[in-house]
Amino acid sequence: MATRANSVEHPTVIKVDPFLPADQQKGLHNRWHPDIPPFATVKPGQTFKVECVDWTGAQIGNNDTSDDIKNVDLTKVHNLSGPVAVEGAEPGDCLVVDILDVQPFDKMPWGYTGIFELANGGGLFAQEFQSRAAKAIWDFDGIYATSRHIPGVRFAGVTHPGLIGTAPSPELLAKWNEREGGLIAQHINAVPPVAFPPEPIGAYVGQDLPAPVREKVAREGARTIPGREHGGNCDIKNLSRGSRCYFPVFVKGANLSVGDLHFSQGDGEMSFCGAIEMAGIITFKCNIIKGGVEKFALRQPIFVPSPVDPVYSSKIIFEGLSVDIHGDGTQYNMDASVAYKQAALNAIAYLQKIGYTREQAYLLLSAAPIESHVGALVDSPNACVTLAIPTAIFDHDILPNPEGFPERSFGQCAIRSDGVV
Amino acid sequence: MATRANSVEHPTVIKVDPFLPADQQKGLHNRWHPDIPPFATVKPGQTFKVECVDWTGAQIGNNDTSDDIKNVDLTKVHNLSGPVAVEGAEPGDCLVVDILDVQPFDKMPWGYTGIFELANGGGLFAQEFQSRAAKAIWDFDGIYATSRHIPGVRFAGVTHPGLIGTAPSPELLAKWNEREGGLIAQHINAVPPVAFPPEPIGAYVGQDLPAPVREKVAREGARTIPGREHGGNCDIKNLSRGSRCYFPVFVKGANLSVGDLHFSQGDGEMSFCGAIEMAGIITFKCNIIKGGVEKFALRQPIFVPSPVDPVYSSKIIFEGLSVDIHGDGTQYNMDASVAYKQAALNAIAYLQKIGYTREQAYLLLSAAPIESHVGALVDSPNACVTLAIPTAIFDHDILPNPEGFPERSFGQCAIRSDGVV
Amino acid sequence: MATRANSVEHPTVIKVDPFLPADQQKGLHNRWHPDIPPFATVKPGQTFKVECVDWTGAQIGNNDTSDDIKNVDLTKVHNLSGPVAVEGAEPGDCLVVDILDVQPFDKMPWGYTGIFELANGGGLFAQEFQSRAAKAIWDFDGIYATSRHIPGVRFAGVTHPGLIGTAPSPELLAKWNEREGGLIAQHINAVPPVAFPPEPIGAYVGQDLPAPVREKVAREGARTIPGREHGGNCDIKNLSRGSRCYFPVFVKGANLSVGDLHFSQGDGEMSFCGAIEMAGIITFKCNIIKGGVEKFALRQPIFVPSPVDPVYSSKIIFEGLSVDIHGDGTQYNMDASVAYKQAALNAIAYLQKIGYTREQAYLLLSAAPIESHVGALVDSPNACVTLAIPTAIFDHDILPNPEGFPERSFGQCAIRSDGVV
Amino acid sequence: MATRANSVEHPTVIKVDPFLPADQQKGLHNRWHPDIPPFATVKPGQTFKVECVDWTGAQIGNNDTSDDIKNVDLTKVHNLSGPVAVEGAEPGDCLVVDILDVQPFDKMPWGYTGIFELANGGGLFAQEFQSRAAKAIWDFDGIYATSRHIPGVRFAGVTHPGLIGTAPSPELLAKWNEREGGLIAQHINAVPPVAFPPEPIGAYVGQDLPAPVREKVAREGARTIPGREHGGNCDIKNLSRGSRCYFPVFVKGANLSVGDLHFSQGDGEMSFCGAIEMAGIITFKCNIIKGGVEKFALRQPIFVPSPVDPVYSSKIIFEGLSVDIHGDGTQYNMDASVAYKQAALNAIAYLQKIGYTREQAYLLLSAAPIESHVGALVDSPNACVTLAIPTAIFDHDILPNPEGFPERSFGQCAIRSDGVV
Repeated sequence: MATRANSVEHPTVIKVDPFLPADQQKGLHNRWHPDIPPFATVKPGQTFKVECVDWTGAQIGNNDTSDDIKNVDLTKVHNLSGPVAVEGAEPGDCLVVDILDVQPFDKMPWGYTGIFELANGGGLFAQEFQSRAAKAIWDFDGIYATSRHIPGVRFAGVTHPGLIGTAPSPELLAKWNEREGGLIAQHINAVPPVAFPPEPIGAYVGQDLPAPVREKVAREGARTIPGREHGGNCDIKNLSRGSRCYFPVFVKGANLSVGDLHFSQGDGEMSFCGAIEMAGIITFKCNIIKGGVEKFALRQPIFVPSPVDPVYSSKIIFEGLSVDIHGDGTQYNMDASVAYKQAALNAIAYLQKIGYTREQAYLLLSAAPIESHVGALVDSPNACVTLAIPTAIFDHDILPNPEGFPERSFGQCAIRSDGVV
Repeated sequence: MATRANSVEHPTVIKVDPFLPADQQKGLHNRWHPDIPPFATVKPGQTFKVECVDWTGAQIGNNDTSDDIKNVDLTKVHNLSGPVAVEGAEPGDCLVVDILDVQPFDKMPWGYTGIFELANGGGLFAQEFQSRAAKAIWDFDGIYATSRHIPGVRFAGVTHPGLIGTAPSPELLAKWNEREGGLIAQHINAVPPVAFPPEPIGAYVGQDLPAPVREKVAREGARTIPGREHGGNCDIKNLSRGSRCYFPVFVKGANLSVGDLHFSQGDGEMSFCGAIEMAGIITFKCNIIKGGVEKFALRQPIFVPSPVDPVYSSKIIFEGLSVDIHGDGTQYNMDASVAYKQAALNAIAYLQKIGYTREQAYLLLSAAPIESHVGALVDSPNACVTLAIPTAIFDHDILPNPEGFPERSFGQCAIRSDGVV
Repeated sequence: MATRANSVEHPTVIKVDPFLPADQQKGLHNRWHPDIPPFATVKPGQTFKVECVDWTGAQIGNNDTSDDIKNVDLTKVHNLSGPVAVEGAEPGDCLVVDILDVQPFDKMPWGYTGIFELANGGGLFAQEFQSRAAKAIWDFDGIYATSRHIPGVRFAGVTHPGLIGTAPSPELLAKWNEREGGLIAQHINAVPPVAFPPEPIGAYVGQDLPAPVREKVAREGARTIPGREHGGNCDIKNLSRGSRCYFPVFVKGANLSVGDLHFSQGDGEMSFCGAIEMAGIITFKCNIIKGGVEKFALRQPIFVPSPVDPVYSSKIIFEGLSVDIHGDGTQYNMDASVAYKQAALNAIAYLQKIGYTREQAYLLLSAAPIESHVGALVDSPNACVTLAIPTAIFDHDILPNPEGFPERSFGQCAIRSDGVV
Repeated sequence: MATRANSVEHPTVIKVDPFLPADQQKGLHNRWHPDIPPFATVKPGQTFKVECVDWTGAQIGNNDTSDDIKNVDLTKVHNLSGPVAVEGAEPGDCLVVDILDVQPFDKMPWGYTGIFELANGGGLFAQEFQSRAAKAIWDFDGIYATSRHIPGVRFAGVTHPGLIGTAPSPELLAKWNEREGGLIAQHINAVPPVAFPPEPIGAYVGQDLPAPVREKVAREGARTIPGREHGGNCDIKNLSRGSRCYFPVFVKGANLSVGDLHFSQGDGEMSFCGAIEMAGIITFKCNIIKGGVEKFALRQPIFVPSPVDPVYSSKIIFEGLSVDIHGDGTQYNMDASVAYKQAALNAIAYLQKIGYTREQAYLLLSAAPIESHVGALVDSPNACVTLAIPTAIFDHDILPNPEGFPERSFGQCAIRSDGVV
C-alpha cells in the first residue's frame, strides 16, 4: 500500500507498565548517581520515546478518599525512566533536548493532585494548615482536565516532565550531599524535613548491577526531591511539550533521566504533589553542542519555551508581600518565598468567597495553569510576588462582582476516610 | 464646527513640571500619612489625569555619566502626586481604579535606569557586585525604548506606575512603623539598610498645612520604599495602562496617590532603580464597590491585567535555585529570593558571553520586559525561579549558537566621571 | 535642572486643527498625484510627528443623530497630511516606516463609526440593508473606547492609520486611472459606484501651488478611496502603532502621506466608515533600504506587526461560505467576499439574539477588534471565511447558553433625525 | 494495583487501518446523504475516539516523487469516518462538539502536502502556474513538523479535522445539488471544474446496506469537496484540538462524520491539498442544546477556538488587493479572493528571493501556520487581504535585510518522476 511503505514508528527505548509498582520494572531508578549505567543509548538527532510511571510508582488510586496519599511511601520516589545515553556526549558539552511531546497513556486517562500530611510530605502550607491528606482526581479528555472533586473548572494541560536531568559526576554528587547535609544539620528536627540525605531504604535501580555498585548507589545516591545544577526536579511547568532545553553534561553520554510527568501545574506547585501527576510517554530528540558549557556559561539548564503552551489572556491577579499578613504579621526581609505564600493565601481566601473549600482552592492553585511572577525584589523590606488565575478556566464568572458573590457550594475534594480535614 | 461641539478634554487634577525640583511644586508628597488632606477630589466614573514628576523629583539628567546617581538624595523620594479623594469612598470599600493610560511628557521623551552605589540605594546585587553608580538613558520613540548605553536592543514599553496606593489609616500606619522598626532593630548596621524608618529630613507635602500637621506627617509618615497592604511601591510591571485594580480603602475618600512612573520594567526590577524611570501623565477612572473588602477578602490589591501589554512569544529562559552557585555555594532553604538572584546571574553571565558588560546586562534585565516566574516552591530545599528574556528585543540572534557567539563589544553604559565601575 | 538639559521634544512637521475644515488648513491634501510637492522634509532615522484631521475634515459631530453622516460631502475625502519627503529616497528604494505611536488629540477624546446612506457612501451591506445613515460616537478613555450608542462593550484600541502611502509616479498614476476607469465603464450605473474617477470638485492641496499644477492635480489626481500598490487606504487594523512597514518608493523623496486615523477597527471595516474614525497625532521614523524593491520583490507594502496589539484570547467564531444563505441562496464560485459577508451576517443575527439592533451589530463588528480569517480558498465552489468576536469586550456573557439568551434591549445607535432606519 | 482500578480507556467507536484502501474498510463513507445510517451511537457527555484514514484513503506514499499525486483518483474522496449518532439529537437542535484532541497514528508519523495537476484537482494557482504535480512529505516529531522537501523550517502543528459535519436532511441535500448544479451549468467546460455533481463512480459506504439505499446514496449523495451549512470540508485550521463547535442538527441523531485530518494548515489552504494531510485519531465529546438553531440563529457552525493553538508573535505580513498585479493587471471589483491570491503571490515572490523554489513556497504557505486576514472589504474597488508568515518557523532570519538576502538554495520539493515542473 502507498501509505505503508516507509512508515516507521519512532522507537520507544524504555517501556513501563503504569499499573505495576515501579520497583518491579526495568529501566527505572529513583536516585541520582554517576555509577548507574545507561539503560538505553540513542544517536544525536534521533526521535525516540520514553515511557514513565507516575512519580510514586502506582501508589495512588482513582478513588474518592485520600488514604493512599496519607500512607504513601516516599522513600521510593521519584521513579525515573533512564538513564538514556546520547552517543558522543562528553563532560562540558551542552545536551540539547527537544521535548517533542508529553502524553498520558491511553489506558490511564487520569491523574491526581494531592495535599500531603504534615508529617509525610508536607507542602507549602503544611504548617499553616496543619495539613491532612486530601486529593483531587482529574480526568483527561484530550487536552483538557476536569475533576469531580473540584467542579466548575476545565483547563488545557501544559504537559511537561516535572523532573528531567543529566547524571551528576562524582564531584557534583559529592557537592550536593555535602551542602544539603549541612542544611539538614542546621535544622535537625524540622517537620517536614528541610532536605533529604541519601537513603538506602527504598533505593532502586531497575537494571542488573553488581551488588557493590547497587549498594554504592543506594548509599550515596542523591535523592530526587530538589532540582539541582543538572536540572532534576525543577517542576517548571513551561518546560513543556514543544520546548527546547539545554543541559550541561557531567558524564560521558550525558545519561538523561526523566519522570514525574505532569498533565498540568501552576507556578509554584504549592501543595507538594501539586501538579496533576500522571504516568505517560515523553518524546525526545537530543543533540550535542560541543563545549557548550563554556560557550554559554551554562551553570544550569536554560530553555526555549513551547509555542503551544495554553494561552488564557484574561486573568485575575493577587499580590503578596514579605509580610505574613495571613499569620502573625511578621515582617520578613525581602523574602520572595513569603511573598509568594501571601499571594497564594490571598487567592485562596478569594476562592473561598466564591464557594470553594480551602482544600479545593489549594489543590486548584497547585494544578491549574496559574502564573506567578516575581513582581519586585528591590523595595526593601518587601519583596512583591503576584499570582494570576485565568478566568476562562471557570464555567462561571469569578471577576469581582459589585454585588459580591452568590452563596454557592462546590462540595469538597477527596479527604481521608476518617473524615479528618 | 461639527467636531468642536461637545469635545471636552479630560481634566488634569494635578499638574507638575517635570523639570522642577519636586519640593517646589504643589500636589506632591513623599510620605504616607492619613493626615495628608486630599489635594483634589473626583467623582466615581469620571475620567481624569494626574501628572507626575520622576521618582527622584528631577535629580537625574540625560547625560553620559552616573554622578547624579551616585549623589542622589534619597531622603526626598518617592515624589507622589496626590492624594486624590474619590467621593463616597469609605473604609472597608473597594476602590476600583482603571489605569487608562500612562504616557511620558512630550517635552521629556526619555527616561533612565540606574545602578545605585552600595552605600546610597544599593540594589539586588549591591553586595555581590560592590555596586558603583552606573546608568542607562533610554530614548522614547512612541511605544519603543532604545538606549545609546545598551546598543542592539529595542522594546515596547509596558508603561505603568511603579507606585500607587490608597492612604493608610492611623492604625495601619502604626502597624507598618512597628513591624518595620522591629526589622531594622534586628539588622542595625546593614548596608544598604533593610528598611527605612520615618525620616523628617526631606519629608515634603506640597500643600498649605498647619505646622503641627506638617510636622506630624514628617515625623510619623511611612517611607514610600516598600509596597504594603494599600499597594504602594509594588513595582509590578503588569499594573500597566489598561489594567483594572481593586484597592482596599482605609480612610474616607480613599485618598489615592501615584508616582514613580515607569516606561518599562523587568520582573524583579533588580537594580533598585531598575525600571525605566520617567515623568509623565497617568489617566484614571475610579469606581467604588461598597463593602468590597469583605466581599472579596481584600487584604491587598488585586488586579486584572491589560490586553495591550507587549507580547513577545519567543524567549530564552534561565533557571535559578536556592543555592548560591555564583557565590560561595551556600545551600539555602526554599528561598525564592536566592533562586531569583541565581537565575538573574545565569542570565547576566550569558549576556556577557554575547558581549555586553556586567553593568549593561544588569541594567537591561532590570529595564526590559523580562518575565520571572516562581517555577516551584515545593522541592525542598531548592526553590526554583525562572527568568525569561524575549529574543525579539535584540536586533541580533541571542539563541544558543552551536558555534558559540562571535566576539563582539557593545561598549559600556554611563559610569562615574572618575571611571570607577 | 537636571532633567531639563537635553530634553528635546520630537518635532511635529505638520500641525492641524481638528476642529477646522480641512480645506482651510496647510499641509493637507486629498488626491494622489506626483506633482504635489513635499510639505515637509525629514532625515532618515529622525523621529517626528504628523498631526491629522479626521478623514472627513471635521464634518461629523459628537451628537445623537446621524444627519451629518447622511449629508457628508465625499468629494472632499480623505484629508491626508503630507507629503513628507525623506532625504535620499529614490524610486526603487524601500522606505522603512516605523509607526511609533498613534494617539487622538487630548482636546478631542472621541471618534465615530458610521453607516452611510446607500446613495452617499454605501458600505458592505448597503444594498442588503438599504442602508440609512446611522452612527455611534465612541468616547476614548486612555486605551479604551466605549459608546453610549452601543452599551455593554469596552475594548482596547488598535490605533492605526487607515490610510498611508508613498506618492505615485506619473506612470503608476496613469495605470491606476486607466484600470479603474475601465471598471467604471463596465458598471456605469452602479449605486454605490464601483470606483471613483478623478474629481476636480472638492480636490484640495494645502500648499501654495501654481494654478496649472493645482489644476493638473485636481484633474488627474487619483481618489484616495482604495488601497493601491503604494499602500493608500488599505484599512489594515494591524498596521498599528508599533508596526514596521516597508513601502516601495516611486518618486524622489518617497513623499509619504497619512490620514484617516482609526482608534480601532474590525477586520473588513464593513460599514464603509466602519472604523472608529478620529483626528490625532502619528509618530514616525523613516529609513531607506537602497534598491529594496528589487531586493524584496516589493510590489506592495509589507509589514511587521506590533507587539502591543490588543490580545483577547477568548473568542466566538462565525463561518461564512460563498453561498448567499442570508439572501436568495445564490451559489457563488469561490468568492471570499461573499463568504465574508455571510460570516458577518451570521454574526449580526447572533448579536440580535442577544439584544442588539441590526445597526448596532453592524457598527460594532466594524469598529471592535474583530478578526476575520480566510479559512479556505480551495474547496470549490465554496470559499470559507471566518469572523471572530472577542468575548471579553462585553460586560456580559455572549457565549452560547443552553437556556438561550435572556430578553434584553440595548437601545439603539444614533439614527437620522427623521427617524428613518 | 492502586492505579489500575478505575482506569478506563476512552472507547474508540470507529477503527480503521491507515495503510489499507478506504473502500475495504468499515465505518467509512465518501458522500453526504441522509440515508446513510449511523455506524455508531454515543451518549451526550461521553468522551470517545474516532480513527480516520487520510483523505485519499491511502493513495499517497512517503517517497520522493509526486507521481501518486499526479494519478490520484479523486472520485474516491474524501473518506470520512462515521456517521456517529448522538442520542437525543433532533432536527433544530444544536450539537455541541468538543474536539478534544487530534493525533496522528503512532505507526504513521508523517503526512503530505500536494500541488495537484491542473487537470486533476487543480488548486488556487492551477491556472496561473499551469500546475504539475508536486509534493512535500512532512515528518512528525511530537508537536512539530519538518520536511526534507522544504529545508529550514519547523513548526508546531495546529492539528484539526479539515472536514467535519452533521448529516443533511433530504431537503438540504436537494438544495445543495440544485444550487451547485446551476453553477456547473454556467461553467460547463471549466478546468478544473467549478463544482462537482453527485458521482456514482467511486461512491462508498462501508456498511451493509440494501442495494437500493446504496444506489440512492451513490446517485444523489453530495460530494464532500466544499463546506456547506452543516460544516463539511471547511478547512478551518483553528477548528483544532481544544475547540468547541456548535453544529446545526438536520436529522435525528445528528449523524456526525469526520475526516481529512490535518497536522497543520495555513489560512486558505491554497494548493488544493495544501494542509499537511494525515491519518489519525480524533477525540470527541458531544452535547445537545435543544432548539439551539433558533436560540442562536444557527445557520452554519460557530465555534470557540482552542487555548493551545500555536502562538508565533513575530510575523512578516504581505498585502494583496483586488488587482491582478502579478498577472495582466486586471482591476476586479471588491474581490477578496483575488486579493488573497495577490497577497500569496507577493509572499511567494519574497520566499523566492530567499532561495525557495516557487513550488516550495506554494507548499509552505499552504501547510505552515500562515494567517490571512480580510483587511478591508470596503474601499471600492479594492478589497485588501493580508497574509502573515511567522518568522520563528524558519531556522534563518527572513526579515528584510538592508543588504538583501544571501544567495542560497534549498533544493526542490518532490516532483514528477518525468522531471516536469
